[in-house]
Amino acid sequence: MQIAILLYDGVTALDAIGPYDVLKLMPAADVRLVTADAGEIATDGPLKLVAGETIESVPRPDIVVVPGGPGALAASRDERVLRWLCGAHDHTQFTTSVCWGSELLGTAGLLRGVRATSHWLVRDELAGHGATAVDERVVVSGRIITSAGVSAGIDMALRLAALSAGAEVAERIALTLEYAPEPPLAGAGSPRTAAPELVAGLRAGYARSRS
Amino acid sequence: MQIAILLYDGVTALDAIGPYDVLKLMPAADVRLVTADAGEIATDGPLKLVAGETIESVPRPDIVVVPGGPGALAASRDERVLRWLCGAHDHTQFTTSVCWGSELLGTAGLLRGVRATSHWLVRDELAGHGATAVDERVVVSGRIITSAGVSAGIDMALRLAALSAGAEVAERIALTLEYAPEPPLAGAGSPRTAAPELVAGLRAGYARSRS
Repeated sequence: MQIAILLYDGVTALDAIGPYDVLKLMPAADVRLVTADAGEIATDGPLKLVAGETIESVPRPDIVVVPGGPGALAASRDERVLRWLCGAHDHTQFTTSVCWGSELLGTAGLLRGVRATSHWLVRDELAGHGATAVDERVVVSGRIITSAGVSAGIDMALRLAALSAGAEVAERIALTLEYAPEPPLAGAGSPRTAAPELVAGLRAGYARSRS
Repeated sequence: MQIAILLYDGVTALDAIGPYDVLKLMPAADVRLVTADAGEIATDGPLKLVAGETIESVPRPDIVVVPGGPGALAASRDERVLRWLCGAHDHTQFTTSVCWGSELLGTAGLLRGVRATSHWLVRDELAGHGATAVDERVVVSGRIITSAGVSAGIDMALRLAALSAGAEVAERIALTLEYAPEPPLAGAGSPRTAAPELVAGLRAGYARSRS
């Protein structure tokens, strides 16, 4: 079971590492951290990750995970990445995204006519890729699985593990990772329940970053 | 606000990256990924991380985060790491662990007389360090904060952000990371509610790994 997790400069580390630490516990998981250019990857913070392989060397993964991050837009303009995504998707069991990783799937044309989600700040942009935006944390649309912002990649990967390897495997992984979350600030993590001024503040900050 | 996250060979990436992506969003956060020997760090899977600095170069962080992983026991035998932990703890605002990172705090003598937690598989071992083991996801004991297995580092870091920078800051971080978890397999993530045969299976596997 070959699992390719795409890395690029400006990726948010948790978008990639949540699914990574879930999926690497699947039976016979063969996880590859892949990137367009071999070498160190700068995340959106001080941490650097090492991509083990180039995308060219992993042309036919069984599962593709595309994390998000501030670098997603630039990565979605790299023709090599888009060609790889399209070619890989022809053969995958599941092609997935976390957060703004949806921008890469969308630009590659993989979300046309697909129910999909993304980080709440950019979810409305899915329509521009021909997708139907859905306000759910994880959306399974046939072989395409998309998920909400950053931390939702963990939920996505557990759903994926259950679909691919069965519920018992996914349950064992959840127990290994002690995934029984207790968010300490009730309701803060969703724009539906967070303080309206915080939601408005983040929306304004995002609008400024795109203008 | 200098935040040192300790890395070592055999660390579980999510133990470190959950808190990293929370704490780096604190105002004026200055996050340092530190290690005993500079260079690439092998996690407990194919991913490698790059530690930006050695522990010697970050002697007085305001916050210390010690992640866990299969390499925790070996790391807890590195006198340089233990000396650094003790010296740093003399001045920190908070000294924290995720999962089996508790082994390093314990070996450094920082858990004597302290209520603490760890991954459910190793929680009973806390008593050997003079700690009182507590079955809670995050335990705040004065300046020492410990947390349960792997994914609990996210909950820990949000608690820490709230304690250090206030609830509104922590709420903004939770909203940015869309931390409104929906574990897809109800009850699977805790030994209290998981299938007993899965709990027994993981306990047996852990016992074999230590024998």
